[in-house]
Formats: sequence, C-alpha cells, structure tokens
Amino acid sequence: MKVKILNEKSLPNMPWEQKPAGSGDVIWRYSKNPVIMRNHIPCSNSIFNSAVVPYKDGYAGVFRADDKARNMNIHAGFSKDGLNWDIDHERIAFKTDIDEMAPFQYGYDPRVCWIEDRYYVTWCNSYKYKPTIGVAYTYDFKEFTQLENAYLPFNRNGVMFPRKIGGLYMMMSRPSDSGHTPFGDIYISQSPDMTFWGKHRHVMSPSRGWESTKIGAGPIPIETDRGWLIFYHGVLTSCNGFVYSFSAALLDIDEPWKVLKRGNEYLISPQMDYECWGDVPNVCFPCANLVDADTGRIAIYYGLADTHTGLCFTTVDDVINYLDNNSQV
Amino acid sequence: MKVKILNEKSLPNMPWEQKPAGSGDVIWRYSKNPVIMRNHIPCSNSIFNSAVVPYKDGYAGVFRADDKARNMNIHAGFSKDGLNWDIDHERIAFKTDIDEMAPFQYGYDPRVCWIEDRYYVTWCNSYKYKPTIGVAYTYDFKEFTQLENAYLPFNRNGVMFPRKIGGLYMMMSRPSDSGHTPFGDIYISQSPDMTFWGKHRHVMSPSRGWESTKIGAGPIPIETDRGWLIFYHGVLTSCNGFVYSFSAALLDIDEPWKVLKRGNEYLISPQMDYECWGDVPNVCFPCANLVDADTGRIAIYYGLADTHTGLCFTTVDDVINYLDNNSQV
Amino acid sequence: MKVKILNEKSLPNMPWEQKPAGSGDVIWRYSKNPVIMRNHIPCSNSIFNSAVVPYKDGYAGVFRADDKARNMNIHAGFSKDGLNWDIDHERIAFKTDIDEMAPFQYGYDPRVCWIEDRYYVTWCNSYKYKPTIGVAYTYDFKEFTQLENAYLPFNRNGVMFPRKIGGLYMMMSRPSDSGHTPFGDIYISQSPDMTFWGKHRHVMSPSRGWESTKIGAGPIPIETDRGWLIFYHGVLTSCNGFVYSFSAALLDIDEPWKVLKRGNEYLISPQMDYECWGDVPNVCFPCANLVDADTGRIAIYYGLADTHTGLCFTTVDDVINYLDNNSQV
Amino acid sequence: MKVKILNEKSLPNMPWEQKPAGSGDVIWRYSKNPVIMRNHIPCSNSIFNSAVVPYKDGYAGVFRADDKARNMNIHAGFSKDGLNWDIDHERIAFKTDIDEMAPFQYGYDPRVCWIEDRYYVTWCNSYKYKPTIGVAYTYDFKEFTQLENAYLPFNRNGVMFPRKIGGLYMMMSRPSDSGHTPFGDIYISQSPDMTFWGKHRHVMSPSRGWESTKIGAGPIPIETDRGWLIFYHGVLTSCNGFVYSFSAALLDIDEPWKVLKRGNEYLISPQMDYECWGDVPNVCFPCANLVDADTGRIAIYYGLADTHTGLCFTTVDDVINYLDNNSQV
Amino acid sequence: MKVKILNEKSLPNMPWEQKPAGSGDVIWRYSKNPVIMRNHIPCSNSIFNSAVVPYKDGYAGVFRADDKARNMNIHAGFSKDGLNWDIDHERIAFKTDIDEMAPFQYGYDPRVCWIEDRYYVTWCNSYKYKPTIGVAYTYDFKEFTQLENAYLPFNRNGVMFPRKIGGLYMMMSRPSDSGHTPFGDIYISQSPDMTFWGKHRHVMSPSRGWESTKIGAGPIPIETDRGWLIFYHGVLTSCNGFVYSFSAALLDIDEPWKVLKRGNEYLISPQMDYECWGDVPNVCFPCANLVDADTGRIAIYYGLADTHTGLCFTTVDDVINYLDNNSQV
Amino acid sequence: MKVKILNEKSLPNMPWEQKPAGSGDVIWRYSKNPVIMRNHIPCSNSIFNSAVVPYKDGYAGVFRADDKARNMNIHAGFSKDGLNWDIDHERIAFKTDIDEMAPFQYGYDPRVCWIEDRYYVTWCNSYKYKPTIGVAYTYDFKEFTQLENAYLPFNRNGVMFPRKIGGLYMMMSRPSDSGHTPFGDIYISQSPDMTFWGKHRHVMSPSRGWESTKIGAGPIPIETDRGWLIFYHGVLTSCNGFVYSFSAALLDIDEPWKVLKRGNEYLISPQMDYECWGDVPNVCFPCANLVDADTGRIAIYYGLADTHTGLCFTTVDDVINYLDNNSQV
Repeated sequence: MKVKILNEKSLPNMPWEQKPAGSGDVIWRYSKNPVIMRNHIPCSNSIFNSAVVPYKDGYAGVFRADDKARNMNIHAGFSKDGLNWDIDHERIAFKTDIDEMAPFQYGYDPRVCWIEDRYYVTWCNSYKYKPTIGVAYTYDFKEFTQLENAYLPFNRNGVMFPRKIGGLYMMMSRPSDSGHTPFGDIYISQSPDMTFWGKHRHVMSPSRGWESTKIGAGPIPIETDRGWLIFYHGVLTSCNGFVYSFSAALLDIDEPWKVLKRGNEYLISPQMDYECWGDVPNVCFPCANLVDADTGRIAIYYGLADTHTGLCFTTVDDVINYLDNNSQV
Repeated sequence: MKVKILNEKSLPNMPWEQKPAGSGDVIWRYSKNPVIMRNHIPCSNSIFNSAVVPYKDGYAGVFRADDKARNMNIHAGFSKDGLNWDIDHERIAFKTDIDEMAPFQYGYDPRVCWIEDRYYVTWCNSYKYKPTIGVAYTYDFKEFTQLENAYLPFNRNGVMFPRKIGGLYMMMSRPSDSGHTPFGDIYISQSPDMTFWGKHRHVMSPSRGWESTKIGAGPIPIETDRGWLIFYHGVLTSCNGFVYSFSAALLDIDEPWKVLKRGNEYLISPQMDYECWGDVPNVCFPCANLVDADTGRIAIYYGLADTHTGLCFTTVDDVINYLDNNSQV
Repeated sequence: MKVKILNEKSLPNMPWEQKPAGSGDVIWRYSKNPVIMRNHIPCSNSIFNSAVVPYKDGYAGVFRADDKARNMNIHAGFSKDGLNWDIDHERIAFKTDIDEMAPFQYGYDPRVCWIEDRYYVTWCNSYKYKPTIGVAYTYDFKEFTQLENAYLPFNRNGVMFPRKIGGLYMMMSRPSDSGHTPFGDIYISQSPDMTFWGKHRHVMSPSRGWESTKIGAGPIPIETDRGWLIFYHGVLTSCNGFVYSFSAALLDIDEPWKVLKRGNEYLISPQMDYECWGDVPNVCFPCANLVDADTGRIAIYYGLADTHTGLCFTTVDDVINYLDNNSQV
Repeated sequence: MKVKILNEKSLPNMPWEQKPAGSGDVIWRYSKNPVIMRNHIPCSNSIFNSAVVPYKDGYAGVFRADDKARNMNIHAGFSKDGLNWDIDHERIAFKTDIDEMAPFQYGYDPRVCWIEDRYYVTWCNSYKYKPTIGVAYTYDFKEFTQLENAYLPFNRNGVMFPRKIGGLYMMMSRPSDSGHTPFGDIYISQSPDMTFWGKHRHVMSPSRGWESTKIGAGPIPIETDRGWLIFYHGVLTSCNGFVYSFSAALLDIDEPWKVLKRGNEYLISPQMDYECWGDVPNVCFPCANLVDADTGRIAIYYGLADTHTGLCFTTVDDVINYLDNNSQV
Repeated sequence: MKVKILNEKSLPNMPWEQKPAGSGDVIWRYSKNPVIMRNHIPCSNSIFNSAVVPYKDGYAGVFRADDKARNMNIHAGFSKDGLNWDIDHERIAFKTDIDEMAPFQYGYDPRVCWIEDRYYVTWCNSYKYKPTIGVAYTYDFKEFTQLENAYLPFNRNGVMFPRKIGGLYMMMSRPSDSGHTPFGDIYISQSPDMTFWGKHRHVMSPSRGWESTKIGAGPIPIETDRGWLIFYHGVLTSCNGFVYSFSAALLDIDEPWKVLKRGNEYLISPQMDYECWGDVPNVCFPCANLVDADTGRIAIYYGLADTHTGLCFTTVDDVINYLDNNSQV
Repeated sequence: MKVKILNEKSLPNMPWEQKPAGSGDVIWRYSKNPVIMRNHIPCSNSIFNSAVVPYKDGYAGVFRADDKARNMNIHAGFSKDGLNWDIDHERIAFKTDIDEMAPFQYGYDPRVCWIEDRYYVTWCNSYKYKPTIGVAYTYDFKEFTQLENAYLPFNRNGVMFPRKIGGLYMMMSRPSDSGHTPFGDIYISQSPDMTFWGKHRHVMSPSRGWESTKIGAGPIPIETDRGWLIFYHGVLTSCNGFVYSFSAALLDIDEPWKVLKRGNEYLISPQMDYECWGDVPNVCFPCANLVDADTGRIAIYYGLADTHTGLCFTTVDDVINYLDNNSQV
C-alpha cells in the first residue's frame, strides 16, 4: 500500500473478490450480486441502501427494508461473513426520552458510524412527516437510543465522520425540499455534543454531467494520510428520470469541507440489469464501506435500483491513484 | 371454502395453477406469463389491460390493443380455455342511435360485466378527445350497442357491479384530469336505467405508500357472504415515474361505498422482468377475474408494463383470510 | 324590441342605467360600482360571484361571501331595489336527508334558477374536499333543502336552464381538475328528476385569445325567440396569471348544446381599477342576470376581482344585434 | 390592561393612532401610510419588510432596501419618532472572524431582537447563493458583528425570542426550498451559545384558507402573562399568485412550540391600494412590533406589496381578547 | 453634448419635456402619460409595445393593437407631433410573393428601422402558429411588402441596426420557447440580403436581479462615437409573475456583439399606477426611440402594463454618463 | 426494384441480413445487435446516435460517445465492413477560423452527409452552453473544419440533404427549448453558402399517438424517383417518460417541405431488451442509413436506449410499398 489508512482495523475475512483480469475499472462488481434480495425477509418489498459495519468477529448492519405497503423502515441485522445476513423481521424500535421523537413514522437510507465507544446511526427520519436527519446510538444492534434530530427539515443523507475533528463531531448532509428534490449540495455541520449543530460549511456542488442534478454523501469517510476518502452519489436527469451513479473524493483531514481531489467521472453507474430495472430504474446508491487496514481493500455496499443490495470492490490505492490522475476540484 | 360465493357459476375448466410449494404469497403468478403477447394480432403494438368473462362453454373478452401508431382501441376475442385467444383483427365497431357517440375516437382499459341478460362493456372512451366512461352492451361479442357515456369528462376505470343494488345499477369510477393524472379516488355512482347517473358516493382515497398517488377499481366485484370482494390498483410516484401495483378490499353488500376491509399491502407489484420493462415500466394493472363458485378459485387477468397480458391466481378464502389479518380502513 | 323574450316577467323597477351617450359598448358598467363592497357584512373578506333573482316585489339572492379566514361560503340576502342588500350574517344552513351531503365544507359561485315552482340553487360544493356541483332548492330563501350533488368531482360553474327541455332538466357545467384548472369546456347534462344526470353533451370549447385557457357558463340562460341567450366567462393566461372576461352566445332552443351564435370578442374585460386589482387581479365574473320582459333590459351582476360585486347593463336587442354581426361558431 | 406585559419598557412616544370610531377591526392601519416610501434613499427601489426597535430615546432599525438592480440588501437607520427615518445610504458592512461568512452576497427580511446586553439581527442570508438564516449583533447600529449562520440552507424568516427559555436561546424559522417555496411551517430551534442549534420543535402548519400555502414568523414575540404573543404571516395561492396576510397566536411561555391560541382569521389582508399593487401585488408582511408596557399599545411595521413600509396598530388586550374568542388550535 | 450622435437627423419638434427639477433620475416619465390609451381605435383592447419613427415632417409608426378578442395585430399610424396619433382601424395587410407567409395569423411587438432607402418592420410573427421574427418593408406606411421570416421559431424581439456593419445587415433577437419563456439572451444575427441569416453571435445574458429571468432588445440602436447605444428590457420573476423594467448598454460599433458598457440598474421599472396594473401588471416595455441629433434628446415609447403606450425622456449624454459610472460587463 | 434510387453508389458489401422468414415487418433488426457496445473505447460510457457513410472501400463515421463523466462528445471512426469499428479514443478536434466557435463545449447526435466534394457533419453543438446546430466538413475524417453554427439556439437534429435543391443547400432541423423539450416539428432551412440560412419552411408536426410529443429528422434523405425517402423519429410521453420510435416519409424532390407520404405507424419501436433499458429506457433513434443503389437495400444505424448502437434493415421497395398503403398526410 502506498496510501496509509488511519484508525481502521484489520478485516482479513471481509467480503472480497480480486479485480477481474484485464479490467480497467477502478471499482468492480461482486460476481454474485445481488447479495441481499428484495424479499429476504417475509415483510420486505425491497432491501437496499443499507449500512454495514464490523461487529465483534463478524458484521452488523442497519438495513433499509421497505415493506409491502411501500412504507420505509430500518431493520437491524447480523452476519458472520458480510454476505449471508440474518435481518430482523421487525423494524428497529428506538428508545428515547424525547417526546417529540415518537412515534416513529418512517426512516430510510441509514448509515452506521463507530465513534469513540459506540455505533451511531443516522438516517432520513420523518419528523411530522417531513424528512430530516435522525440520530441514534447502539452498543449491540439490539437496543437503540434515539437522540434529537440533527437539523430542521428538509434534509437527507446525513453521514458522520468516525471521530471528532477540532473537538467537534462532524456530519455531512444534503439539504433538500419536500419531494423528489431537483437540486442538492453536500454540507458539513459540526456539534460539540450530538444535540446542537452549527458551523455549517459548504463542501461541494454538482459539477459534471453524471452528477448535474444533485450530489450526496455515501459511506462513512475513510481516514488516510492523504485525507478523508469518501464515495458520494450523483444524479443526472434524463428525459426518463433520475440516474444515480457514484464516484470518490478526498477531503482535507482537519477542515474536511475543503475538497482536495474529486473524481471527474463516475466510478459505478447503472449498467447491469439488476441496476437498470427494479422499483426505481437506474440507481446505484452506496451507503457503507468495509476497509481492511492491512491491505487497503474496500468493499462497498450499494443499493440496486432501490430494490436489492449489492457489493462492489476496490482498494484505497486504486481509488486514490485514480483521483491523483483524474481530479477536478 | 369458508367464504361463500354468491351468484357465480361453476368454472371447472378455468385457467388455474396451484400455489407454488412454500410460497407465502396471497396471489401467485402464472408460470407461463405472458399469456397474450404484444404482437398477438398483426396490427397490435401491445395487448394488455383487458377483460375476460365466461361465455358459453368457454370465454370471451374485450381487449385493449394499441396499434402500431399507438392509437388505443378495443377488440373482441374468444377462447376455449382462457389461455389461447382468437382476437379480432379489427376493433369493435359499436352501433348506436346516439349521434354524439360517433365517430369512435379512442377507447382503452375495458371491463365486461354480465348483468341480468347481457354483457355490459365499460371503457375509457374519448368524447370530443376527452376521456370519460363509455358504456355498451352485447349478447354475443359480435354486435355491440353503445349507450350514453356515463359521466362528464374526465373519468377513467369505470367498473360495474354485477347486479342492481337497492334497485339501482352501480358503477365504480375514478374521476381524473386531462393528462397523466397525479390524484385519484374511487367513487360509486348509481343509475335507474344505465343512462342517467347520480347519488355519487366516495369509496376510498389513496392511503399507504404503494398507492399514495391514486387508486382505481380493477375487475368486476365478486359477491360473497362477507361483502363485495374487489381488487384495485394503486400508484406510487418514484423519481422515475408511476409504479402500478394492486391489492384487495371488501365492500358492504348493500352500501358498497362502505369499506369493510382493505389490504394494507399490495398483493402484486412489478417484480418480474415482464412487469418491470416494456412500453410503460413497472405496471401491474388488473382488469378482470374469473371465479369458480365451487372452489373459490380466482384467476386475475392483468396488464404487464402496458405491453402484454398476464395471469395470476388466488382463492376467495386466501384473499379474505389475508384481509381479515391485514386490514386498514 | 326586435327580439321576443319568452317566459320572463316584467321587472319595471329593476336596476338600470341608460347607455352613456356616445358609447359604442354593447354592455356598459353601472356608474356607482361596486354595488356590494367586500366588507358588507361583519364576517366577510369579500362578496362577489353572486346570484340575484326577482323575489316577491323585490329581489333575493345567494351570495358568495368569503370570510376573513378565506373560507368560501354562500349566504342568502334580500333587497327591495337590487342595489341595497340585506345579507345574512350566517351562511346558509342546508337541510338534507342525505347523510353524504353533511357536513357542509365549503361552497362558492352560486347560481339561482326559478323552475316550475321553486328556486333551485347550484354552486361549487365540496364533497370530501373535492369540488363538484351542489344542488338545493328553496321557496323563501330562508330554508334550503339540499339534494344530491349532480356530478362526480371535479366540476364547477353548474348553471341550470329555467325549464325542462324535451322533458328533462338541463344543466351546463365545466368539468375541471383539483386546482386552478388550466383547461375547461362547457357541457350540458340532462336529468329526469334532479338526482340522476346523463346524456352529457359538449357545447363549446375555448377558441379566441380572450378565452383561450377555459370557458364557463355564467347567469341563467334567457329564453328568446332567437334561442337561449347566455353570457359566459373566458380566461386568458398572461405571464402574470389568469384574466377573466365575458361575452355572449345564442344556443338552440330545443337542443341547447348547439351553438347558433357566439361573440367573437369579450363584451366586458377587466379595465376599471375595481376589476384590475383586489384579491384576485383582473377578474370580471358574471353569475346572474335580471331581465325585463317588457323592454328587454338586462342587468348583469358580476364579481369584481374576486372582491366586490358589480353591475353592468345591456338589452336583449343590443346583445343579439351584436351577435348577428360578430359571431364565430 | 387586563393582560400583563412582561419584560418590556414604557414607550410613551411610540407611533400611535386610536382605533377609528365605529371600527370593528382588531388591527387598524395608520392613516398616513406608507411611512417609508420606496425611494426613501437614493439607491433604493423599495424599502419594506423591515425591523424597528426602541433605541436610546428614539428608535433604530434594520431595513430591507432593494436597490435599483433589484439586489436585496439590509441597511441600518435611526429615528426620533419611529415615523421619520434617517436610513444609511450604504448597506450594513458586517464584521466577522468567520471566513465562510464573507463576502456578503444578499440579505433580506431582517428582524432585530434585544437579548441581555445587545441587539441581535437575523435575516435571510445568502450562503453560497442559497438562503439561510444569518445572525449578527450590534450595540449601536453602526458596527455589526456577524456570527455563524444558524442553519443549513434552505431557510427564511428567522425570528428570535427576547430571552433565553430553559437556559437556551430560541429562534423560530421556516424551512423552505430554493425558490418561491409553495409550502412552509414554523419551527423553533434552540441554542446554548448562538452558534450551535438543535432541539428543533415543530410549532404550526398552515391551516385555514388565508394561510393554506405556508406560514412564517413575523415580529419578535411579546411576553405576556398569557403566553408569548406573536404575529405571523400566512400565504394563500390564488390563480394569480401568492397573497400575504397576517394574524396572531399565543405560545406557551416555557415551551413556546406549544400553541395555546391561534387566530382563525387574518387580522390584516391586502385591501388598500398600497397593499394591493406594487412590486409584488397583495402582500402585507409584518417584521417588527413596538410595545408600550404601560398601555399595551402595539405598533406593527409591515411591508406593503414588497414596495413601501407601513404601520398598523392594536393593543395587547385587543389581540388577546380576539384570540380568546376566535381561536383554532 | 459630449457624446457625438452619428447618422441621425435633427428633430427639433420631437416630443420633449425637461427633467423635473431636483430629479436624480436618468430617464424621466412624460407628465401626461399615457399618450395612447387602450381604446384609441374602435376595435382595440389595448395599444402598447409600439414603434415610432420620423416620417416626412412628422412621424409614422407601427402599433401593436390587440383587438377585443385579444388577438394580436399590428397597425400603421401617423402623427404630426408624435403625441396625437391617427392609427388605422384595420391591421396592416402585408403583400408578399412568398406563399408560406400567408395567411397572416398574428403579429406583435413591432419595431421600425430606416435602412438605406426604406423602412424595415420587424415583429413577432406567427408562422404556423409558432412565434418567429417577421420582416417587411415600406416606403410610405401604407403598402408593406413582407419578406421571409428571419429565423426558425421560436424567437421574439427582433431589432435591426440602422445600417450595414461589415457589409452585412444586423439584427438582435431573443430565442425563446413556445410559451411564456422563462429564459432569454440577446443575440445578433447577420445577413447579406435580408433573406439568409447567419454568423449568429451571443451578446448578453441575464445578470442582475432586475433582469434575472430574461432580457431582450428594445428600440433601434442609436449610433454614437462611443458605440451603439441601446435600451433593453429585463424580466424578474416574483412569486406573482413577471416584472418588466429596462436599462441601457453600449455596444461596439464594428462588432456590436461586444458589450462595452451595461447599466447595473434598471432605469425605468413599473412604479406608476399605469405601469403597475392593467392587462399584464408590472410591465414597462420600450420599443422605439426618437433622437434629436442636435441636442441628443431621446424620447422613448414604451408599453404600459401591456395596456397603454407611454413616453419617457432622457439625453444621450445623460445615459452615457450614467453608463460610464454604473457599468457592469 | 420498382423504385429507382438516384445519386447513390453500389454498396455490395454493406451490412445486410435478409428479412426473417415469415416476418411481416417492414424493417427488421440485425440478429447480432448491438453492433457497438457502450464501452467500446476506454473513455466511453455509451456509444449511440451515430452517423456512418461509405468511405473509400469501407466506411467512416462520426460517433456520439458520452464519456464516464456523462459529457457528450463526438468521435471519428473507420470500418472495413460497417460492423467492426475502430473509433478514435479522443473526440474530434475541430479547426476553425471563427473565434466564437471555440472552445468546444459539447456535441451530440451527429449526422454525416456527402455533398459535392466533401463530407459535411452536423450535430447538436453547444454555443455558450445552449444547443444549436454545428456544421463542419472533412475530406478524410481526420481533419475537420468547423463553420458557423447554422441557427440561433435552441435547435437539435440538423440533417442535410445530399445535394443542392433549387440552387440552395437544404437542412432539416427541429427547433426546441433549453431542456427536455416537450414539443417539436421538422423544418427545412435553405442556404446559398452554408453560412447564411433562411427561407425556413415547415415540414411536419406531430400527429399520431406514437409521435404525439415531438418529431425529428433522422438519417440523410435518400433520393428516389418517388421523392426523398426519410426516416424520422417520434416521441410519445407515457407516465414514465419519453418513448422514441421511428417511421418513414416521402418528401417532394424539388420542394422537400411538401410531404407526399407519411407512415401512419412506427416501423421500429422499443421492444427488445437492448432498446427498453439502459441509460435512457425506451429509445430507438436512427441517425444514418447506408443504401445500395443496385438492390435498394438499406441499413439503418440507430441508438439503443441512449446506450449502445444497433442496426436494422429494409429495402427502398419495402418502405415505399408500405408508404403507398399506409400513409397519412
């Protein structure tokens, strides 16, 4: 490895496949996609846009599982290998002292981030039927304590950094409107205590064609000696609707709202049939990455056409080498 | 059978497949879908959203067949087994004494209902190029007599009840606007004579996610000792367009605008490739059901992606058992 | 009078002003407009789009009076001279045996029509918060009995004919959508009993520039030996919104959906300050006319910028002479 | 006075006119409106939606003054009597240590609130050309220090409470989208330090017709023994655009997101010519109130058609008496 | 005069009023506006957006006169003094050898430009009911010969330069769409022969707030030793519709697509009642200027709220002095 | 051959497959579609909507190749057999003396037309980021000289005729707006010199259902003794977006804006999976045809779902026979 990964663990048993021989791709798909099918649990219409983290000697996760009424819920799950998942049939029942947080209305597109001593979950949370960023923590993926919503509506794609920076917690998010928002930038907000948020900083706006409608944060940032490595999605609007692809960027370690490198192409776009058709055609939506500190291997979990969950692979060196040679900022 | 079916005939030879072993589905698809392909007759671009009834010792039907100019027409057809169809190459040429009804401009999404002594056909009929509900009757599926349009524009999905209730004919419909209407409820209207309609009653509004944009009636209601069993479609609007699924409900026998039970999930949503892509992606649209009074077997004909016609199966007991355990009203 | 008025009474004391000397206008405004100011009764934000008829030795009317919460209501009122009005401070409390008609939600743009032995009121009535045509009758403008809504939603501007034609009651209306509808034609529907409606006939579509967005019926038709004389509004969409003007047409006596003459210009458009600004700028909206059978004098009550009520005048001969020389059909 | 005003000063010389004899209005207009004309300073196209507070022996204010390029700016000004104003010809030049806050791009709709030892200004502030709530403080209306933006975009109508509640600063705001937002609720957010904001609470959604599109906070809340008295604007969408009116509400003293009383009518709507036409027709938009603790007199400064600034008057007793008799919650 | 005017005549009797004492305005309104009222001729609903030129010892013009059906037409007219006009009651009947140009459908917003030996008229011309730029010439304002339309649809605001530049005729225009276009830039196209056009050059895009939606050329450019002086309109979109104002710019003499100076403010915006309300509220739309070569006086004819025609005044020195001190390019 | 082809060469080795036995189709697909895959060159996201011509003893072409940033570019390429292509990895670098033409911003949907002594390329070219028709010529597909843009924005689908008609060059095009234009007709413009264009003629508007939203020219017209044979695309708008199909028409030889025959059905619509899903579902978009003068064989290159490039086949006799029997004009 040329790039040094910071503050990550060894994950020798994480899901992995070598890059296919002869491939020039920076990120390559798992040959057995989808890894989680839409009907994986009895109540589910679809399982996608989900977050996986190392947990004990295996993995745990928080999964977006829309039910057959097409209500959006999040469920917890466990796996030995990151491929075969035991997902709760019931949605997460958050505990909270905050009256305003109950009752739970809907939740989707979760992310999970280990910070200090526990796992924080962020997701798009309904507050009085308007979307904002819900925050909770868990120690065991069985009991979840819900905190205050981070922001006023309307917001989506809240993604935490895995440690305080400058003494403050950091969260990326994408302010939006009340519908299928046709615009969207990534911002970082800061907090001393996970309750009050401020010092909002603009990070990136849509730029190239593939992301010309809106962009949003994806998995938890990976800390490297080159900066924070992030994957983020971008949306193009064709005459037949939104197309979701994703690429990568490097953010400054201390002031992560400063973009050091930014891919000038998508790295994955919808091309396989499981990405091109399903409940929402043409969606590749990354929500989580596993990283092996020893090898730099990265496994990215991403939503397939808002229907199934898939996996794709790369390495820290592959991505940063790409960014070094194909960056727009 | 636990539920008793009223006023239906024995149909021992209707299309049927057993529920696949191990399936937890309430409705299951025909393994040889589609049953009618888009190019079934020389002029057709697509054949879908069509209505089938028992006729003599076999079946007859009225079929939506869009031609290769993508004009919308309805054709008659006959079948011995409900699977292999002989569909007229020419659209139905309605006879009528009412000058205003001619010339025929376009028609789509037919339903056929046996009442008293003849078959009534309802469909979305162009009146001065605005959609409303056309009404006609036939004794033999060869000669069709067109009556007055039931309503003022703009209306779609007119579905009759198979007998008078309280001395009046009853029709469900979905008032709409002049385009791809983004709203829609089911109403019932009443008539003493099939010409003048009134006593309009609101039946249901969109509710759960899968039907949050609009809902509309599907096949002819099935009379049971538990109420009128109906299947109805619902539409969800994703960032890439409309998604049509369907579910079931039970209506009061004497005041059918009163909803007794209503499925809180879809029972079929677009998941197979023949439902997910085609002229209009992600459409499952039911227009007819055959019922065997002896066994309670139900065969539902439904449109596949506005392209082909498919079949799926259930039983009266299966559906009502589901409604008894999964109802929202 | 060249034209003969049929089935109307003498109204020697109706509001009237001679045409200003030198004016070439077919319709001329009352010099003391507005006749009813927005705050005429304590609760009212605005009083406009209202219907007046001869009653006993004076006049009675049903008035659209939006309250200060901008809820739309209709109120009854009385006047000796048609100019000074005593309007109820409470909205009309309809009596009805039909459960579905209660509770009253909102009502607007009433018309009043004497037929046979009583006054029928039609208005835009909320049914489950969707607009359709409400129908009621009264003998004394104190007690009103509500009948069934004439149509399914969505409909506005229901205007009755003052007698049965061909044995059936007749009503014009304008099918619409759920919002500020950008399209609209006039239709006639027919009924044997004021409950069931059918035999829907298309009358007119928008045509010239001043009415290019939509048209709708206005006051009760005036029967003449030349046909039914009607005033109707038309809407043009500028880059700053809708502009409502009105003109006149002659319909066939026996088949009133046949248009004999139709003004090719507006006869009144928003030009006075009380028509150009107010709650909704640029609206002239006629809802009632008084006619003197002896002289052919016509007084038209019309809404001013959705704020106040105004009057304008013409004669049957003036209008029909205009139509004879300026007609498009 | 029946109602007791808390934490306000005597303002014997504040602008004031008695209610006109015979008027039934709860709020009445200043007879010499507008008080500040659109061209009051050389560069201004319009001066409206502006904030006035007692300052020394007179008044100071922060004024929205759009220039002749129709760029939106805020200016400081002083007055002896609250009627005759000396407004700076240059916009406020904020000082700040926060790099992200510079350069100033645009600002509008300011409010000014005395808290503890200084005046805080909030306004709709452009951050990377997207609207959010800017925050600054001043001691003298000459030097203004800008703090962090309170929220992520998109937000407007940030209005502070004049003291900490439960140990936290409180601000109302209306999350919005990037354009002429067609929706909007009032929320309260809380902060320990004016930098980090959280504990967001929903206060009110649009309800009655006059406010059916969106609502937003207006002047600084007035503390009384009955609760926080606020005036807030509401917007109705006619076929010709937005109509802005305003009414009043009472919020719980300790949990101000709890609405105790809420007017069920507007108290001022656009009716005078200076409210009905101008740069944006039909706008009455309140941004500030002066209160005399001795008499309960209230003078409200409000924007006139986004063009001039006007005044209207009421008393605490008048408003709360109205709310006691005309409340919807 | 500091600035030298080129190729213009003396017009000592042109309409003129001195700048009001104490006024700081660059352009000032005629005290007797409107100069042409909406009903100036019997058939007219409105007369506005019209073009005036010196002709013999007086003036001639081409006027937009919408009729009472709100059809858009252009009429010729004559005046001794530029204030009192004799306008033809019939629209211009163009002669043409080109079959495609007939029949005339609608025309609006004319400009008139003297080039070489005749007057050229350009206007927004309907070609198969789609707007593009019509071209005709006249020697006497009685007989007009129509040439080919200059461009493909969709285009508006075609304005010629008064002489060839670089051997080619030059025309500014604003490509648009088929409706109330929400975007618009000024371009210059070139032609050797008034039939074939090419060498299209982009001139200016919307920039400041007052013109942020679109801009378009106004009167014929005035040649000076500082460059071509033009007045152009700009449109801002408020929540209640379009607002039309106008300002000035200087273009390079030889390459007029190069902008030398451009006003950073509007010079006239809708502020008088005759500009703020009428058929289209808030419109000031300049279409012609008279220039006196001796004094530099300029009289601008401009449309008032799409209803009447008004006049305003300035001088070449006043405008260019303004541009020298208030330019953005 | 019944129809005689004019001015085309023998192409005995052009791509060809016989019509499948039993097929009633007028145009049939290549059995090995797609012929060019989306990732054919390293940088490409997709290669589609591309233009092929005979060149030397093989073929050359200009290809739309969107890169992985989804920027739209055009590339040159060569092939021996029209099936196996060697496409440049770099986009075409146009040479030009016209400053305004540089820098190249984006280009798409090219056509190539041999006229007199060289190949002319037309494409949708960005001029100041607005789409219009770019024009260039090449002798060798290595060096391309760019001329003036033919038209003002907004325009797409510029397609030249292969010889002068009446002494003028001729180009079809489809004026559009700035986005996913919901309207569009075909026009012909004329030019003496490829720089100045005029004498614009309307050719066709959308008509039947399959083309009801817009139509546009496709490959270069084929000259026959029956007229100019063209293939053109049409767009239908379903509730899930645009559907692109194509058909044929015959234009008058000397006045090609006169339509002699026009297919009343599509001849190819999206039905194969490679047409139904991909970057833009449901697109069949023809840009080029090869014709063998000896046999009348036609090979049409068409874009597949805006992703890959495909081939389909017909003959001049087949198409014109179809038009003779299935024409609407």
